[in-house]
Amino acid sequence: MKIGPESAAASAISASNSRTILVRGFDLVEDLIGQTSFTDYVWLLITGALPSRAQSAIFDAALVAIAEHGLVPSVQASRMTLAAAPEAFQGAVAAGLLGCGSVILGATEAAGRFSTEVLSLTSMSLTDAVAKVLARYRAEKLPVPGFGHPLHKAGDPRAKKLLETAKRLGVAGAHVEAMRETERQLPGVIGKALPMNVSAAIPAVLLDAGYPLPALKGAPLLARAAGLVGHLLEEIERPIGFHMSHAASASIRYDGPAPAGFVADEN
Amino acid sequence: MKIGPESAAASAISASNSRTILVRGFDLVEDLIGQTSFTDYVWLLITGALPSRAQSAIFDAALVAIAEHGLVPSVQASRMTLAAAPEAFQGAVAAGLLGCGSVILGATEAAGRFSTEVLSLTSMSLTDAVAKVLARYRAEKLPVPGFGHPLHKAGDPRAKKLLETAKRLGVAGAHVEAMRETERQLPGVIGKALPMNVSAAIPAVLLDAGYPLPALKGAPLLARAAGLVGHLLEEIERPIGFHMSHAASASIRYDGPAPAGFVADEN
Amino acid sequence: MKIGPESAAASAISASNSRTILVRGFDLVEDLIGQTSFTDYVWLLITGALPSRAQSAIFDAALVAIAEHGLVPSVQASRMTLAAAPEAFQGAVAAGLLGCGSVILGATEAAGRFSTEVLSLTSMSLTDAVAKVLARYRAEKLPVPGFGHPLHKAGDPRAKKLLETAKRLGVAGAHVEAMRETERQLPGVIGKALPMNVSAAIPAVLLDAGYPLPALKGAPLLARAAGLVGHLLEEIERPIGFHMSHAASASIRYDGPAPAGFVADEN
Amino acid sequence: MKIGPESAAASAISASNSRTILVRGFDLVEDLIGQTSFTDYVWLLITGALPSRAQSAIFDAALVAIAEHGLVPSVQASRMTLAAAPEAFQGAVAAGLLGCGSVILGATEAAGRFSTEVLSLTSMSLTDAVAKVLARYRAEKLPVPGFGHPLHKAGDPRAKKLLETAKRLGVAGAHVEAMRETERQLPGVIGKALPMNVSAAIPAVLLDAGYPLPALKGAPLLARAAGLVGHLLEEIERPIGFHMSHAASASIRYDGPAPAGFVADEN
Repeated sequence: MKIGPESAAASAISASNSRTILVRGFDLVEDLIGQTSFTDYVWLLITGALPSRAQSAIFDAALVAIAEHGLVPSVQASRMTLAAAPEAFQGAVAAGLLGCGSVILGATEAAGRFSTEVLSLTSMSLTDAVAKVLARYRAEKLPVPGFGHPLHKAGDPRAKKLLETAKRLGVAGAHVEAMRETERQLPGVIGKALPMNVSAAIPAVLLDAGYPLPALKGAPLLARAAGLVGHLLEEIERPIGFHMSHAASASIRYDGPAPAGFVADEN
Repeated sequence: MKIGPESAAASAISASNSRTILVRGFDLVEDLIGQTSFTDYVWLLITGALPSRAQSAIFDAALVAIAEHGLVPSVQASRMTLAAAPEAFQGAVAAGLLGCGSVILGATEAAGRFSTEVLSLTSMSLTDAVAKVLARYRAEKLPVPGFGHPLHKAGDPRAKKLLETAKRLGVAGAHVEAMRETERQLPGVIGKALPMNVSAAIPAVLLDAGYPLPALKGAPLLARAAGLVGHLLEEIERPIGFHMSHAASASIRYDGPAPAGFVADEN
Repeated sequence: MKIGPESAAASAISASNSRTILVRGFDLVEDLIGQTSFTDYVWLLITGALPSRAQSAIFDAALVAIAEHGLVPSVQASRMTLAAAPEAFQGAVAAGLLGCGSVILGATEAAGRFSTEVLSLTSMSLTDAVAKVLARYRAEKLPVPGFGHPLHKAGDPRAKKLLETAKRLGVAGAHVEAMRETERQLPGVIGKALPMNVSAAIPAVLLDAGYPLPALKGAPLLARAAGLVGHLLEEIERPIGFHMSHAASASIRYDGPAPAGFVADEN
Repeated sequence: MKIGPESAAASAISASNSRTILVRGFDLVEDLIGQTSFTDYVWLLITGALPSRAQSAIFDAALVAIAEHGLVPSVQASRMTLAAAPEAFQGAVAAGLLGCGSVILGATEAAGRFSTEVLSLTSMSLTDAVAKVLARYRAEKLPVPGFGHPLHKAGDPRAKKLLETAKRLGVAGAHVEAMRETERQLPGVIGKALPMNVSAAIPAVLLDAGYPLPALKGAPLLARAAGLVGHLLEEIERPIGFHMSHAASASIRYDGPAPAGFVADEN
């Protein structure tokens, strides 16, 4: 059965023989291990070329910005999973990553698509392009991704720092400008100020640095995988997975049908 | 319902208020974003302290060594998953990580436990300690983890390079020695030479550098997450997931019951 | 941090004390175990009420229709995952389910949304309603979900049988009619006949029987979980996971950069 | 690269051509859809043969017994995952199944291995065989799987009902006897009575009915997949995922380093 489009049946990432492992054209052992930072290697794996010093530095900054933010839902899911299935560390990491979806970290890619659409309108000013894309989002009742934060209401400090870092490194460009202009126009469109959050800043600085749009989701996923490893080590040494689960369960009451006199101990 | 041991109901990784995000005691925005490499940050997340220059360099080397080795089963599972469920990039990464288990990358942790057991026998020489642990593994029919490789039969070049790098950085120590001694004794125990592979070298150099044993599985999982992002970007741009699935299916014949004259097009 | 809409903080599914486990208002032990089929119980869990005989029978038919179709990509991903991580049967099932996404089984829910939209146009004839929704899909370049099949080109026999079964049971209704009308109009819209496949038949018969639209994805996922268990037992007893992976890898050539004279054994 | 044992490169589960889908030798469309219950079909998929009436009934009973038990950790992980990644229903089911591991549902398989070991000691009485295996578990500090329950301290009512059902159906046999004898001997071995729980009763009745030991983990996984679909539909209609996460997070205090005067709003 053939499903999906014809394709070249080729891959350009890695090939090996008994003596040599080629990765993106480099000899993994001779050229990379012990010489290249993990960040540079990840950039190479994703883009096919080693990064410049500025690209590497902004990629580091973006990954550091998003790797960890405490006991968020995906971390809880991951720690509860390890508590219940300690034989499979990989399963607990996977469970945590499955919660890195459209509502939370997925805004990273959505914001990258937003600024990319703005910048595709090359026949008009940036102001007009932002206004036009914002109008389309409003018309189709789409949320504008990457603005506002439930905890950091006055502004997400990670976003501010990432934009400063991009400017310092000389990689801030058109995507950053598009998001700044969007931040300026948003109050007029939705009636209140919503400052840029980290999910808008990350795609802006990465896309300006040359990181590929379709791989944007990969950056927060990789970063969160690191955060999860830290949490899972703590779960092994000081477990809280079942404790959190108990508190979560106790916060929910049962409102389904029950026989007269039934008293629930838990749900 | 209380399941599992009592615990302190505390976490020491991160805390936040509207202005500040603390991670391991550092101010994420003031102290880390734009100043710290991702590798150093991962070490901080896992161990609670920033690494020395040598710790950082050997961690980079280990992550680079294990992130990518072509179209291995977990990469195939990940690319097939994205082909079938392109709406969930995170699901494809998760599917790939679920294949990083005991048979393949899991040897990393198993090898770390092996050398840790050897080094716990402080009352005898290293030679005797290795012999004793090898004897126990043989008696219990356990595989000795981290030796031999189906492709790199003459020796896994990644292992050799990692050990050289650890020596150069001054972090090679007791765990490396234990694995080298094991490599020397193996032919006498199992009847053939099985050179150390990357799954033995990684725990040896990381444990010697101070990386915690229970988090060993996290290192290859993090590294492979990066490799998966590279493959998934390629899958988006040049899909081979369904092509590989077709080839895999065509390599298997149906040998179950069938009515006379039934000719299968596929299974 | 508050994320997402306020909610009642209540659940109506299950509550327990030391003697009684309530599920959907029933006493699990007194009323259900040993008296109720799994199919009826699943319907109860999802809808809150036990099914009629006809609802139960069509749900059985739908689950049987979709549970197994050979070595499809998600089955391969699952078997490769078990081969690499045999310690985590649950991880292999999870990896298989992660491939039940929008391209393959996800058409079930999409088709259910299609017929639901058709039937929401109550002010016009069914013919006009189908034409209007088809026109919208064409205008927005959306695929019409649930028609055509790469292997069963003359018609998916599972779809035909499901529709016959629904008619025999007296549950075929407006959703089935909407999909039949769509099948009739499709050649005029897209220029060729595309017969209904199982992913259109399942939502049509289930929605007509009263199964809830937002849970449509759950039916094929549950069914495929059963198929995966069968495959994973076979993988334990007669492993083909690595064999399939080898065939898949061998079908792909490396076309990235390489030094002169490099000959790949694999990629 | 060849990894793992040689194998026949064959599968006996399903084969198809454009007109016919064979499953376990049956014509899926002609013989099964609309005629067979899902439970019977699952038994066929797993064992290769349709079940007897008693096999089918005890399999139904076992699946019903284990599918749902309220807001357990894996259900919470699943609902939090859907809240964060609503685009991937399959990811939320997968996250829930990843928590069906050795600590919780995994006891099912472990208990089946226990009674299988007891029954392999054919040269001695059942009393002696149980005593011998219990002694081995004690010596190796292994937990005896399937006894005791944190909520149902006086006895898990599901276990009692399953054993009664197996007796009524005439399928209770040697495995049930082995577990009953174990229950009798446990107080003398560990110093307190630990009544059989559902994770001991399920393998006992299924193995006595002819269900294969290596597929034991599949039964609770399939059952829990059904329970998860019910919870995820409720999560779509009355979301509590983020509410539970908030309560869980609020139950944990931060005890890591912090600057003087730092007040955390959350962790």
